[in-house]
Amino acid sequence: MTSSVARDPDRLFPVDPSTRSIARELHAGVAQAPIVSPHGHVPVEMIEANQPFQDPAALLVIKDHYVTRLLHAAGVRFEDLGQNPDHPGDPRAIWRSLCDHWRIFAGTASGYWLSETLSTVFGLHDELTSGTADATFDQIETVLSQPRMRPRTIFDDFGIAILATTDDVLDDLSAHRALADDPTFAPRVLPTFRPDNYLDTEGPAFADRVGALLAHTGEPTTFAGYLRALEARRAHFIDHGATSADHGVVSPYTVDLDAHAAQDLFDAALAGDLDTAGTHAFCGHMLMQMARMSVADGLVMTVHPGVRRNHHTGTFRAFGADKGHDIPLGTGYTDNLRPLLELYGLEPGFHLVLFTVDETTFSREIAPLAGFYPSVYAGAPWWFLDAPDAMNRFRSAVTETAGFYRTSGFIDDTRAFLSIPARHDTSRRVDAGFLARLVAEGRISLDTATAVMGDLVDAIPRQVFKL
Amino acid sequence: MTSSVARDPDRLFPVDPSTRSIARELHAGVAQAPIVSPHGHVPVEMIEANQPFQDPAALLVIKDHYVTRLLHAAGVRFEDLGQNPDHPGDPRAIWRSLCDHWRIFAGTASGYWLSETLSTVFGLHDELTSGTADATFDQIETVLSQPRMRPRTIFDDFGIAILATTDDVLDDLSAHRALADDPTFAPRVLPTFRPDNYLDTEGPAFADRVGALLAHTGEPTTFAGYLRALEARRAHFIDHGATSADHGVVSPYTVDLDAHAAQDLFDAALAGDLDTAGTHAFCGHMLMQMARMSVADGLVMTVHPGVRRNHHTGTFRAFGADKGHDIPLGTGYTDNLRPLLELYGLEPGFHLVLFTVDETTFSREIAPLAGFYPSVYAGAPWWFLDAPDAMNRFRSAVTETAGFYRTSGFIDDTRAFLSIPARHDTSRRVDAGFLARLVAEGRISLDTATAVMGDLVDAIPRQVFKL
Amino acid sequence: MTSSVARDPDRLFPVDPSTRSIARELHAGVAQAPIVSPHGHVPVEMIEANQPFQDPAALLVIKDHYVTRLLHAAGVRFEDLGQNPDHPGDPRAIWRSLCDHWRIFAGTASGYWLSETLSTVFGLHDELTSGTADATFDQIETVLSQPRMRPRTIFDDFGIAILATTDDVLDDLSAHRALADDPTFAPRVLPTFRPDNYLDTEGPAFADRVGALLAHTGEPTTFAGYLRALEARRAHFIDHGATSADHGVVSPYTVDLDAHAAQDLFDAALAGDLDTAGTHAFCGHMLMQMARMSVADGLVMTVHPGVRRNHHTGTFRAFGADKGHDIPLGTGYTDNLRPLLELYGLEPGFHLVLFTVDETTFSREIAPLAGFYPSVYAGAPWWFLDAPDAMNRFRSAVTETAGFYRTSGFIDDTRAFLSIPARHDTSRRVDAGFLARLVAEGRISLDTATAVMGDLVDAIPRQVFKL
Repeated sequence: MTSSVARDPDRLFPVDPSTRSIARELHAGVAQAPIVSPHGHVPVEMIEANQPFQDPAALLVIKDHYVTRLLHAAGVRFEDLGQNPDHPGDPRAIWRSLCDHWRIFAGTASGYWLSETLSTVFGLHDELTSGTADATFDQIETVLSQPRMRPRTIFDDFGIAILATTDDVLDDLSAHRALADDPTFAPRVLPTFRPDNYLDTEGPAFADRVGALLAHTGEPTTFAGYLRALEARRAHFIDHGATSADHGVVSPYTVDLDAHAAQDLFDAALAGDLDTAGTHAFCGHMLMQMARMSVADGLVMTVHPGVRRNHHTGTFRAFGADKGHDIPLGTGYTDNLRPLLELYGLEPGFHLVLFTVDETTFSREIAPLAGFYPSVYAGAPWWFLDAPDAMNRFRSAVTETAGFYRTSGFIDDTRAFLSIPARHDTSRRVDAGFLARLVAEGRISLDTATAVMGDLVDAIPRQVFKL
Repeated sequence: MTSSVARDPDRLFPVDPSTRSIARELHAGVAQAPIVSPHGHVPVEMIEANQPFQDPAALLVIKDHYVTRLLHAAGVRFEDLGQNPDHPGDPRAIWRSLCDHWRIFAGTASGYWLSETLSTVFGLHDELTSGTADATFDQIETVLSQPRMRPRTIFDDFGIAILATTDDVLDDLSAHRALADDPTFAPRVLPTFRPDNYLDTEGPAFADRVGALLAHTGEPTTFAGYLRALEARRAHFIDHGATSADHGVVSPYTVDLDAHAAQDLFDAALAGDLDTAGTHAFCGHMLMQMARMSVADGLVMTVHPGVRRNHHTGTFRAFGADKGHDIPLGTGYTDNLRPLLELYGLEPGFHLVLFTVDETTFSREIAPLAGFYPSVYAGAPWWFLDAPDAMNRFRSAVTETAGFYRTSGFIDDTRAFLSIPARHDTSRRVDAGFLARLVAEGRISLDTATAVMGDLVDAIPRQVFKL
Repeated sequence: MTSSVARDPDRLFPVDPSTRSIARELHAGVAQAPIVSPHGHVPVEMIEANQPFQDPAALLVIKDHYVTRLLHAAGVRFEDLGQNPDHPGDPRAIWRSLCDHWRIFAGTASGYWLSETLSTVFGLHDELTSGTADATFDQIETVLSQPRMRPRTIFDDFGIAILATTDDVLDDLSAHRALADDPTFAPRVLPTFRPDNYLDTEGPAFADRVGALLAHTGEPTTFAGYLRALEARRAHFIDHGATSADHGVVSPYTVDLDAHAAQDLFDAALAGDLDTAGTHAFCGHMLMQMARMSVADGLVMTVHPGVRRNHHTGTFRAFGADKGHDIPLGTGYTDNLRPLLELYGLEPGFHLVLFTVDETTFSREIAPLAGFYPSVYAGAPWWFLDAPDAMNRFRSAVTETAGFYRTSGFIDDTRAFLSIPARHDTSRRVDAGFLARLVAEGRISLDTATAVMGDLVDAIPRQVFKL
């Protein structure tokens, strides 16, 4: 039986022996550091309720659209992967499907994290195969049935100090309140303000959502009322510990419209009458408004642009969003963000973290912007780029222009709770390897590398995300 | 005399000793595997006729526009490189020109392949120099005069199991038929349906070509007749063993027009009246039609977009196409291909292989598309990217998102028959090195790497190209 | 106290021991070669006057906007960094600010060059810290007070054989004349013709500048007179040793307008009436005219496109240009330069050096263009890309398509006089490492690598820039 590689103590380090030795030393200094996770998608209800986990398929396959996506590409239908909520399917058959196709995950980030999780959490150190599908399913079930396998216990086991969730604008955040008030639960679990559904005029039921927002906040159906409603909800989030707001726009275009033009676009959007140009303008104006609010209330502004969501409409209609067919687009930051940065780029205390899935922008736009504007930070490699080689390309592309201290620190951006330590460890290993190379190439001293390494896992994310 | 490097047994492997050792082992397992070449430009007539090769210059310089291109950039006129069919020039002088400029090929893919060919086929292990121009010319001539130096014998020597050619839509494919019917010739030589000249309304003599197509198939001059004519020729190709169709469009834009709009554009194209927007629409509609036909008849659809052909018009007028001034363009796949993928992306049996000369799209668009759509495969590094470093960047950019099994396997895409083994060996060595690094970094096991390596040279191209 | 790394004899070489050994040998062969600097921004007046340098802050911080940019991003106000000419600030306080923030430069190109300069010129081998700010300031002042610390002496110490400056079109070039006529000063200091301020219709006081140009040359206010005036000034530059002209356009768009259209645009530009399309057309036509003049008079044409200058208008108004907020844009060369290359691409003696800050164009556009057109050279990594990792990416992206002999050789592009040797040495080390890898991977022989290495630092820049 082939051993998986998750227990190689030198995994992800550079292969050159002297560089590897430096990387090992740098990693050792932070390997046990608490996890600071300033952006992710773990449901707060899961932590608050603290119930046992579901079966292996639900936990490790069905809800991880990075995994189901590749099985789908290999020809497995979503119907057979539990993606239809009305026909969830047989967990054991779904797990077997993963085992049957295990080789397609070789070299992928998803494969690496799954291997790590299986090894460290479930004691499964061998590669998955069709022949061991039932046995591994049983083994995972057995572990899941243990009393210690509850979210809050694992929270402690994983050493998570801070975890930010992502939450609907109208969420009352009572689960966050309950966790904060629970003297037996030490970690900080913070909400994140994510208003996309209330800003995207092309999203489903935009008018209904805005109507609910206005009703909830008691504001009139005017653009000014709409802005006040958003401000009120931001205040509610800040009251419940939020330090950041997240914006998933197609383009980071920004524009500052006058009040009349904004009101007209708002009216047209509610009426479903916005054309393409109007949608672009409204979206650009609202991103500008979000910056204005962040300057005022201090919420860190994170932007995750450049993705064509739900590329295959038939799949979206049948199975809903987040099914692995969100596909990146070429993205420009320099001109699109200029109006925003002209107005707010030098505002004290304003933090704007720029993420991308178009890695050409790392050296061309994001690092130069972060190397001048005190407000701008280069977001850690995100989504498809959140993988060892891509992380190395990110550091190589950004560091020479902007150094380490204009980057955001790692975000795991995940809903796969059990993979969080594997993801943070991946980042730490890759950064240790990158720093080790700089040391071995005589570009920075080991002392400096050690200090930077520590800051990357703690001081930097705390400073950038105001934790 | 400086030895060339083509006989270094560890060439192209990573330099780290432990990684190199793994790469050597992985490569050894496939070094003798038969060559599967599912896309290239070797003329079938050459194989069928099985005549002796021409002189060294004709064989290795004049017809390889990767080589003449660099000599041209160095200041050698095309007139002096045998590019004018009416004045072919002196082979020995042309060979001398190559030798005089040998250093400009240092580090290039063309230089590497030439070195390999000279060493393995002609026993020339030293670097070319002005001083040895005549001697090397003579040596090559001597080898070429040997009875065994015939295409079919070399076919066997090279271990080519399958070779696809690229053929005109109206080719009767009799040479393919003759090869298939010849019991003394075992390899499969397959035609490839390449309709660009019958689809590109801006190409030379579009109306004449379409007229010939319609006449040949007995179809009327209507858009419906035009589609039926193309379908008939595809059927003819399939009857002669074709498994794929190749499409060299400027942009991978797709659109589905109604019958009236298509007829109007077709009429305008035949009349030479299409404007830029009309050309774009017609081209996009025809790419969509080609997908529809591939869904219906099963031909694998390969797309090679994003090249501005014949950049320097004066050179094109004087010397014709394929003279080394086809220059890449930035290319977008996500939105351009969306209409096609909305309609056909989930069709069982549909294979769409996406090539690119814009390597920014590997991680940003092609890998994410291939990681969701069962029909989409990431084409191997093509054209300017078909070289060791670029191949490594391809694997690094694609693997973490889409793994190995959503890629196409190597295509040599060449008309330089003698370089085919060097090209496939290059791919095998680079892939062995890439896999070896993943093993050395603890990301996949050696067993998995060995299995993937074998699949990359055999199972994967056979599956993707339906061989 | 932590030692800085500037004295590591193997700095910037690859870490693999056998590759490093080859790199060391290749570098040793060129380590003492004279510096050929065909493009930079050192003020000729400084060399001619040969006065002592100012204080440490003025010399190493205030005038280096690569350094002040990162301090600004870290929150230090430009007012406190000597950027306001009316309130230059306290040099010691500015130096302390650099020391306080030294860690933010870890891994950056600026940090590396500063370390090298401090070590080799000032004997400061330890990293800067807050605690040693005063002591290092004093040490630098002491060294600066030595009689040998004059520009011309340093010129000799550095081994600079040729240095090109960048000069205003109306500069009388008397300082260049004086240096050339001085028998005690051997190096060549050449002017470079940079007409941007007289071509950019959106620049400050375009009409005034053109008026001054026409008055100076005695030409009438017509487009034909304007062209003759530019030609006359080019001739003046050539008379004073210039071999190249530099063009910093937003886009490398080119177009050939007829005389009437050009006259109309010229009139509108002088009247301040050009719209966006008119500006684009005029700029494209003038780039074409510059090519025409280069063909006629032989000045090498260098193009540095793709930068949005002075991104933050408020900062530009307060502190002027060159303050670190020039931000790159995605740039296309293939179609934009096609009209120019159709007309002049094959002209004997025409040299067009294409620089970029959009590194995606290296493999996609610049290398393919340089691999065909005898006039086109791939410019060395520029600006944000002028750093070790980016230089390696450049060689990797360009070499396989265009080799080494279609690249320009290094340009330092700097106004930081004392950093010139560190910059050229960086380039030599990186190229040695890149060549060493090709040798270690069996792709070129050591003899070839040695010859290429020598050419990269001498023959190539002399040939490309006609020195």
